[in-house]
Amino acid sequence: LKKALLALGNVLSPDEISTDESTRLSYGQDWTRFSHPDPEVVLRPRTLDQLQAIVRLAIEFQAKIVPSGGRTGLAGGAVASHREWVVSLERFKRIEPVDALDLSIRCEAGVTLLELQEQLRNSLWHWPVDLASKGSAQIGGLLSTNAGGLRVVRYGHVRRWVQSITLVDGTGNIQVLNGELDKNNSGYNFRELVIGAEGTLGIIASAQLKLTRRPRDLLHVLSPLNSIGECLELLAEVRNSALDLEAFEFFSKACVAAVLQNRADLKSLPEANWYCLWTWDTATEDPLSCLSTQPLPGGSLVATDIEAKDLWAYRESITESLALRGWVYKHDVSVPPRQLSSFVKDLEILCAKIYSEFEVFLFGHLADGNVHINIVGPRSVAAEEFLRECESKNADLYSLVKAYSGSCAAEHGIGILKKQELLLTRGPTQVEWMRLVKASLDPHQIFNPGKIFDKSAELHS
Amino acid sequence: LKKALLALGNVLSPDEISTDESTRLSYGQDWTRFSHPDPEVVLRPRTLDQLQAIVRLAIEFQAKIVPSGGRTGLAGGAVASHREWVVSLERFKRIEPVDALDLSIRCEAGVTLLELQEQLRNSLWHWPVDLASKGSAQIGGLLSTNAGGLRVVRYGHVRRWVQSITLVDGTGNIQVLNGELDKNNSGYNFRELVIGAEGTLGIIASAQLKLTRRPRDLLHVLSPLNSIGECLELLAEVRNSALDLEAFEFFSKACVAAVLQNRADLKSLPEANWYCLWTWDTATEDPLSCLSTQPLPGGSLVATDIEAKDLWAYRESITESLALRGWVYKHDVSVPPRQLSSFVKDLEILCAKIYSEFEVFLFGHLADGNVHINIVGPRSVAAEEFLRECESKNADLYSLVKAYSGSCAAEHGIGILKKQELLLTRGPTQVEWMRLVKASLDPHQIFNPGKIFDKSAELHS
Repeated sequence: LKKALLALGNVLSPDEISTDESTRLSYGQDWTRFSHPDPEVVLRPRTLDQLQAIVRLAIEFQAKIVPSGGRTGLAGGAVASHREWVVSLERFKRIEPVDALDLSIRCEAGVTLLELQEQLRNSLWHWPVDLASKGSAQIGGLLSTNAGGLRVVRYGHVRRWVQSITLVDGTGNIQVLNGELDKNNSGYNFRELVIGAEGTLGIIASAQLKLTRRPRDLLHVLSPLNSIGECLELLAEVRNSALDLEAFEFFSKACVAAVLQNRADLKSLPEANWYCLWTWDTATEDPLSCLSTQPLPGGSLVATDIEAKDLWAYRESITESLALRGWVYKHDVSVPPRQLSSFVKDLEILCAKIYSEFEVFLFGHLADGNVHINIVGPRSVAAEEFLRECESKNADLYSLVKAYSGSCAAEHGIGILKKQELLLTRGPTQVEWMRLVKASLDPHQIFNPGKIFDKSAELHS
Repeated sequence: LKKALLALGNVLSPDEISTDESTRLSYGQDWTRFSHPDPEVVLRPRTLDQLQAIVRLAIEFQAKIVPSGGRTGLAGGAVASHREWVVSLERFKRIEPVDALDLSIRCEAGVTLLELQEQLRNSLWHWPVDLASKGSAQIGGLLSTNAGGLRVVRYGHVRRWVQSITLVDGTGNIQVLNGELDKNNSGYNFRELVIGAEGTLGIIASAQLKLTRRPRDLLHVLSPLNSIGECLELLAEVRNSALDLEAFEFFSKACVAAVLQNRADLKSLPEANWYCLWTWDTATEDPLSCLSTQPLPGGSLVATDIEAKDLWAYRESITESLALRGWVYKHDVSVPPRQLSSFVKDLEILCAKIYSEFEVFLFGHLADGNVHINIVGPRSVAAEEFLRECESKNADLYSLVKAYSGSCAAEHGIGILKKQELLLTRGPTQVEWMRLVKASLDPHQIFNPGKIFDKSAELHS
């Protein structure tokens, strides 16, 4: 270690190398919480040259690197618990002006989503990715996890809005994946492979992002409904209207109750088993006029963009309200949307059985078939015990997901937490393909050990 | 061979196996023309079971497979000239009804783009990919080449509109890449790797395609301009209007002259060096009203959707008009759009020098930075000689493309024709990555030998 630190000291200044306990603990974990962070050192370089030098030293000293962004992940993808070098990109902060011809913007990996949004605030154009964690989530992490969020129904994932990636690869080379080209059909597309690879194929240093026109006049509707079947009927109707959908969310009665317990400032909602909350791009000066041709379910609440915060508070306070109740174990699954009604029925029966001692909260992105299943346990139980208890039920839960041809990770990724489930839902052949590709492109096996498919590091050591 | 044919006869009926000369010659080449087709056999299976059986027999008999669609490619990607088995998907014709909840449609690989468009004619939704070759181009080929076309400026490439792919892989396994899921962030995305891989990683049997809302009222404008700089200024202005761009094309004076020689029914256009042709989605009942706020360059011609054919005839007749003039050698390059003006100036100087004995025609997709450079030579020269003459200039031409950080294949792909240029513009590291991935995922090296990066088969044997 001493030799490695000396060598690192030749390329980094002292404030860019941290080995103190509190920095190590803080940078060694993400929002998953269930982990025992123990990185060897935390590195916070400022330049691409430094980043490249770090990777070359890692090769020389046979060290492992955990690339680190805002660490808002929920699957342990940024956890470092086996003496890795955490390489934080938080000082890669440059944003260039918008290229108005190409509708793109270049920025470095450490820029947060909120900072990017601020930069584009007065522009006709925006980067249409939006997430609750935007104040912390960084561009490098958003690309590495192919983040989803609230607007996938209209804009798809992060993947769609990336033109070019500059990466330091596993041999210490700097690779530009695609360059500043809108069109480039020249062999295998490695940009698409790196997006969503959770930092296992290299460190993203910067990216060129594609922009699109900002929606003009949004209209928000919250509807109380009695079944997922009714929610899906509403979705089909709303899809067939002349307006473009910007979001279509759902959450259960139990979620609303938890939010109201936490947020005394919110009014109670009309009684219902489920609530749908959606946004339309009306593209008109008078958004409310659109409702004259579109009948809404009884009890629906409507808001223009200015008052929208009140409606979205019910949806966006769920995560924080559950965290206040106790330990939270998160599943993030998806199934084909048309199967959601049947899937949720089976899911409720199964959850009542396997999680009988805990509370279960269902919410998510209806139009994407994406259900967040949050299991809440009392703080009187030890965190480790709660985690183990929940994990012991995963075989049952993911058998159901598998039966519906679903995914074990709709948007949160695999990280450390969902490796078993990956094997079940994607099958051994595709996981073997991942291992083969990883072995080829990261020949020294430097990047983010123990994640996705790599058995070398487990959460419980 | 006899043994192999006997074995194939056990899984295919006689009309599904062809060894006659004319079928072999016809299925062994694509629209590139410069090739010496010589496949061993042409197979036209009807079912996924047969397709899988063919791949397993190819492994057993150490045969190579060239997956075959509409064979409209322009880079030799579907050429079979070394005793390969051509496997045509043209009998994979099933199209399922639209899934209105998920906005998707499933169809088999042999469905042509035109057949898909017909199926969706009366729907609110469409698959927004459009190409001149739509009557022949098949879904499997469109995905394998990540086709571009006229609407990339608004909708991007084929890649964006694919949810799921069913593939027979190099070990004879059937792989479903993604399943019917809108959201699935579970490890490496192999769907994205297969799209654009030109049939080197497996045979696509079917796909689930994503749909989007059909644009409503289009407005088309053709403007005569004096320089590429003026064209780019116009593009920036048009981008900043309140309307969404659906296409933005350009072509040279020489292209118009060639079209007018061929198409006596077309009127001559106002004198200019360059012409821009673009389409707006006006989303209004009265498209022409949009022009009151948008000044157009002098001499511009305007058409509503009904009269649009007249304007588009100038653009869409270029390829056929050039084919009538003589042999055509095609370059399909892209550069960052903001560099187009400087690039085209350098390109014109270079072309005047290196192609002094031939005619040069420039046209393409301005907003994508995509320039089609078509070199036309007289039929009095032998085809082979013309090809060799053009290829001898490639080092000069692609050095210029490389100097602008451009791509040697914006939308046509690499196939057999652009392998040298791939090495120059993407660099040896990324080409090596391609070889490593290919070796891992197609371990018997069965699929589409000699393409993209594989030196095993050359055009001139």
